[in-house]
Amino acid sequence: VRAWVDPFGTWLHDMRKRIDAGVVERVDLLIGAEFIEQAGQHADPQDAEQLRVWANTLHHAQIESACRLVIGEPELERLMRIWGERRFPVLYDKTLRVRVDREKARFSAWYELFVRSTSPDPHGHGTFRDCIALLPDIKAMGFDVLYLPPIHPIGRVNRKGKNNTLKARPDDVGSPWAIGSDEGGHKSVHPQLGTLEDFRALVEAARHEGIEIALDIAYQCAPDHPYVRAHPEWFRGRPDNTIQYAENPPKKYEDIYPFDFETEAWPELWRELRSVILYWIEQGVRIFRIDNPHTKPFPFWEWLIGTVQEHYPETIFLAEAFTWPKIMQRLAKLGFTQSYTYFAWRNTSYELSSYLTELTQGEVGQYMRGNLWPNTPDILTEYLQTGGRSAFAVRLLLAATLGASYGIYGPAFELCEDRPREPFSEEYLDSEKYQIRRWDLKSRRSLRPLITRINRIRHENPALQRDDRLRFHATHHDHVLCYSKATDDNDNIIVTVVNLDPHHAHSAWVHLPLHAFGLPEHEPYQVHDLLSDARYIWHGGRNYVGMDPRAAPGHIFRIRRRLRTERDFEYYL
Amino acid sequence: VRAWVDPFGTWLHDMRKRIDAGVVERVDLLIGAEFIEQAGQHADPQDAEQLRVWANTLHHAQIESACRLVIGEPELERLMRIWGERRFPVLYDKTLRVRVDREKARFSAWYELFVRSTSPDPHGHGTFRDCIALLPDIKAMGFDVLYLPPIHPIGRVNRKGKNNTLKARPDDVGSPWAIGSDEGGHKSVHPQLGTLEDFRALVEAARHEGIEIALDIAYQCAPDHPYVRAHPEWFRGRPDNTIQYAENPPKKYEDIYPFDFETEAWPELWRELRSVILYWIEQGVRIFRIDNPHTKPFPFWEWLIGTVQEHYPETIFLAEAFTWPKIMQRLAKLGFTQSYTYFAWRNTSYELSSYLTELTQGEVGQYMRGNLWPNTPDILTEYLQTGGRSAFAVRLLLAATLGASYGIYGPAFELCEDRPREPFSEEYLDSEKYQIRRWDLKSRRSLRPLITRINRIRHENPALQRDDRLRFHATHHDHVLCYSKATDDNDNIIVTVVNLDPHHAHSAWVHLPLHAFGLPEHEPYQVHDLLSDARYIWHGGRNYVGMDPRAAPGHIFRIRRRLRTERDFEYYL
Repeated sequence: VRAWVDPFGTWLHDMRKRIDAGVVERVDLLIGAEFIEQAGQHADPQDAEQLRVWANTLHHAQIESACRLVIGEPELERLMRIWGERRFPVLYDKTLRVRVDREKARFSAWYELFVRSTSPDPHGHGTFRDCIALLPDIKAMGFDVLYLPPIHPIGRVNRKGKNNTLKARPDDVGSPWAIGSDEGGHKSVHPQLGTLEDFRALVEAARHEGIEIALDIAYQCAPDHPYVRAHPEWFRGRPDNTIQYAENPPKKYEDIYPFDFETEAWPELWRELRSVILYWIEQGVRIFRIDNPHTKPFPFWEWLIGTVQEHYPETIFLAEAFTWPKIMQRLAKLGFTQSYTYFAWRNTSYELSSYLTELTQGEVGQYMRGNLWPNTPDILTEYLQTGGRSAFAVRLLLAATLGASYGIYGPAFELCEDRPREPFSEEYLDSEKYQIRRWDLKSRRSLRPLITRINRIRHENPALQRDDRLRFHATHHDHVLCYSKATDDNDNIIVTVVNLDPHHAHSAWVHLPLHAFGLPEHEPYQVHDLLSDARYIWHGGRNYVGMDPRAAPGHIFRIRRRLRTERDFEYYL
Repeated sequence: VRAWVDPFGTWLHDMRKRIDAGVVERVDLLIGAEFIEQAGQHADPQDAEQLRVWANTLHHAQIESACRLVIGEPELERLMRIWGERRFPVLYDKTLRVRVDREKARFSAWYELFVRSTSPDPHGHGTFRDCIALLPDIKAMGFDVLYLPPIHPIGRVNRKGKNNTLKARPDDVGSPWAIGSDEGGHKSVHPQLGTLEDFRALVEAARHEGIEIALDIAYQCAPDHPYVRAHPEWFRGRPDNTIQYAENPPKKYEDIYPFDFETEAWPELWRELRSVILYWIEQGVRIFRIDNPHTKPFPFWEWLIGTVQEHYPETIFLAEAFTWPKIMQRLAKLGFTQSYTYFAWRNTSYELSSYLTELTQGEVGQYMRGNLWPNTPDILTEYLQTGGRSAFAVRLLLAATLGASYGIYGPAFELCEDRPREPFSEEYLDSEKYQIRRWDLKSRRSLRPLITRINRIRHENPALQRDDRLRFHATHHDHVLCYSKATDDNDNIIVTVVNLDPHHAHSAWVHLPLHAFGLPEHEPYQVHDLLSDARYIWHGGRNYVGMDPRAAPGHIFRIRRRLRTERDFEYYL
């Protein structure tokens, strides 16, 4: 970065103000003439001649015609930018590295499903092949990332039963996050899902549909993972000669052994863990959702992501860290491409506007990209539990328009699954984490039409494909949230208005900053609701919006600058 | 800064949660015993013996009594902090310098006046001696800094007339910021104010009253300043052989020449300008209000403040920079002790809460100390012009309770001077910048009693003497602003409620975070209005407050934790 004092630029800036105010004196022009003459001494012959002519005009012409030259000649400014004096140039003395991620790092729509629940056979165990059959539907809904929870063999020792019970019955399938058994570990696939070839076929079929497969990388082991016997030094022993299982007191995860990153054998451990990523990269995967990165050392992630991206710069890492903001921010700085956020628990107008402003504006937005999830297999929020189908519609609309990247834990979300394991729990009843679920994806209750429509709107409107121009606008109504996104040239402006109350209709006056949108204050403009396809003619910054949750969670207005057809007026009349 | 992994601390943290949940197993205790035994091997003999006893208890005692040791023995935690393992210690590799300012940098009340307007003679020119006579009144009002606009000889060339007219009449006194004439420059005093000895007498008399004199340092010259003839190289010449006067097009300041900081003679210029500060330090001054620092180079200020404070660390510099936030913040980082702010133009509840939160919380509050001014000789805001006496009371209450440091341009503020030079102007009519004013300080309209009371409250309540614990609280009413400040131990909690509307009475429910104040949710507590001396018994976090601008601009409540006397109840009954 270079900077310098630009005396001509300063003079020009001041002159424009002097000309506007009609207070130009001859001496003001002489000062500019000096700068131009001086530049002419360094310019190439042709430009030098032109600069001399202009300097002469400033010297001798009538003040008015000299002023016309100053404000009316873009060539003057251009040549002076080339040849003008650069006084006191300084160079920023740090060398900054710039990483350029691919577009999907910024704009992506994720769909999560458990492959084992995809069997068409009502008693079967779903397979990668079954999953291939679902791809056209997922594509039709508009998702471009299909994220699978761990696909590896599931431990049998201390396997959890349905609803996280301690004792599994023989037919219980266990948690995919309890990775590893005598059938293999992090580089194997669970036999009931299919073979490695089946998985590669899924990756290939997905690519054909424009969908990428994202794998879940959970660096932890079931007690019967092959690593436990081969590398006891990677785990922490206890005084009773057992191995320390995962704990977040008082919660215990007896089916999971964490790695001991304080082991003296850490260099081997790090290399092995990285080789897991490289193995799946070889199978065609380029997106990884990393489980609980905040419980592993920062330098490990910096090294792993850094060295992997050196060879495969297109690799995307999503950090699943629900922890202190500083820690989440640090992980983003270390190299994670995207981050889960607190979005799921931000419900009110105040919470959403302040949190999303924090995430997307100011410093945090410069290194952290939020990926907004209204639900996950671990998170069924109170809002979703109590708000009915409308609550799901509201949260979908928010996630997909507030975040250029968002995701849903798909079947449960589409079908508005809202039953918690017990009151005050955010766990699902009969959670897919511990059992196979049979989803009736053709149900009339499904949100599929809304999801499809919203994803199409996202694809057609570049304003929704970025987060840096998210702005919130006053509504003076606690249940009505209004915000906009726009492209830099204001060619695409999307104003979203959401009724945050899933139970009642509300209306409010929304206040739009027409000036920031490049709209004249005194001309009507059209807003086109991309959800309902209705069009309205609005006047001025303050306009009335009503919403009924029985009809739609809100509006996604595209602002159209000019009235294009007579039909637009018909709507107004 | 050192950091390390503390395995015992982690274990203790988890054990407390296990004990609460009743899920302790023997192996959990054995893990702790190992840490304690290991620490015992490094401890001095007496502590080692104690640690062995405790380790033994964890090994062999009943689980319940072992748990009692874990949670009930503070000595265990203390000894383990001394002797326990510090795994993977790291040292923060940067050396950070810490500057400690004196208390007045954080807590100060400024009063600005023009000495020339202090004469008791209705036709006289005020002097330093006249000013000495006012000190007891200023002291009685509770101010501890008396800030004087420039006290130097005033230029005669291009002197401005009353109300900033271009032509001065022979008896016009000119602007004190047009510094320098044949009577001297920045190291001289204006003869009509008195002699240098008179000034030193003022500094001494003020000190006697507990007041410090702050001088205005404006690095600029009248055309007849001695520097202009002695050092033409410090000014910028124009092609017509005149010197460039100050301009902010289209505004022109023909009575002022700025220094040319781009001069090749900058080392001499810098040294001379610093010698001005050192000269006034020799005369006993330790507080300087710096005029327009943002129009001079950053490195100049860093060097000037750094080198002056090396010898006189008690010196306070207040930056008068009304410019982009980044620039104001940079000046604070470079060394300015206090900064003017945008407070004067923040009127609504939203503006005040968001701006003051930005200033006092988060990063900015770590290096920048705002000094809040409701008015200055340059700033008569629309709010003050249109709100009558009540508007002045509101702005005073806000400045003095939102800011640990605040100031008023005194006589004009006390007397609620609200006439602008012309509509839409923030300039005063008959501004003291260009003429002598006769203030009737004994007027019944004076705000002196309120000022006196508020400054006494500030002195008696340490919560108001700092900004880092400023918090805003919900009122759900646009005209009612509520905020609190508290000491770290919550021994002094001040809740201020302000009616921002100077025209009408308003009431609202204010919502206080009792938990943050260390107050039990279900016990009544007393709020003592330090402005009216009324006492109220409140219950819970939500309480009703009414305010009428004809009586008072708001309330300054001190929260009293316990009901101390029966009299308190009488107020309630």
